[in-house]
Amino acid sequence: MRLYESTLPSGNAYKVILLLAHLGISYETTFLDILATPSETQTEAFLKLNPNGRIPILLLDDGTSLAESNAILFYLSEGTKYLPRDKLERAKVLQWLFFEQYSHEPYVAVLKFLTYWGGFEGRSESEIKRLKEKGQAALGVMERHLQDREWFVGGSESIADLCLFAYTMSAATVGF
Amino acid sequence: MRLYESTLPSGNAYKVILLLAHLGISYETTFLDILATPSETQTEAFLKLNPNGRIPILLLDDGTSLAESNAILFYLSEGTKYLPRDKLERAKVLQWLFFEQYSHEPYVAVLKFLTYWGGFEGRSESEIKRLKEKGQAALGVMERHLQDREWFVGGSESIADLCLFAYTMSAATVGF
Repeated sequence: MRLYESTLPSGNAYKVILLLAHLGISYETTFLDILATPSETQTEAFLKLNPNGRIPILLLDDGTSLAESNAILFYLSEGTKYLPRDKLERAKVLQWLFFEQYSHEPYVAVLKFLTYWGGFEGRSESEIKRLKEKGQAALGVMERHLQDREWFVGGSESIADLCLFAYTMSAATVGF
Repeated sequence: MRLYESTLPSGNAYKVILLLAHLGISYETTFLDILATPSETQTEAFLKLNPNGRIPILLLDDGTSLAESNAILFYLSEGTKYLPRDKLERAKVLQWLFFEQYSHEPYVAVLKFLTYWGGFEGRSESEIKRLKEKGQAALGVMERHLQDREWFVGGSESIADLCLFAYTMSAATVGF
């Protein structure tokens, strides 16, 4: 299989890399320059793999491409110890994966991107304020949930933990 | 089971209602006023059910609460015809569910909310422009994908179709 990721460090690609390492799966990598003009994720060839023009994608050996980092995590972890077999626990894992993409990544990851690679000038003060507030709120939700448990779901590490680790690990470096 | 939803029509709650209807599952409903000050999703009682303070949540008969509309869809559809049994097709369904929450809902649903219930004055012109552009781009991705097929994944209706229908059905009424 082949992972398409970014020449810039991407937390969304890192999640997948982390899980592939945990699972001991070997793979090849194609790096795309997302700061090129136009971005290398917007070429005709790449849009055939992901019409939404975003990395990461996982290209399977049969030529099928799978987009969305958290869908890739789910696919790779099915049948392994990183995804619970219990139906409700599996739904809880997905709850945290959707939380990450809706309430965490759009704030923590975006502020990280603006901090390291620029773009603050295109955002209003109220937008920046909202990024900070919403990102901090998401980290607060995680903090409270982990007060009396070690892992996000059940009694062991799952893709929920891997997923939320990806951008949380650099949250403090961008002011959270 | 009990669905917590909003007194305002919420596409995220509507998805769940639609699937419950398709499955013929009966349930009770609690409506919360998200425009109250503070929002009824921010009470201590509700935050115990969803620390992220958002509707919808599904409260199961054993007292477990499940948050995130698309995690609820996955949970309810497992073992039914609305979720493929094939591992790769299931991942493709999740791909579209994550697409919806990351690339579609934050633009189409937010513009819908601002249009019907106000809040434009708190957003800059560049923000509104981005909502419109990104929302339109998401609809374009869907349009292209559906050019040569009837359903988002595989040969029949799945929760990917239900999920994306929820906000797309009102996209034209808010200027897309």
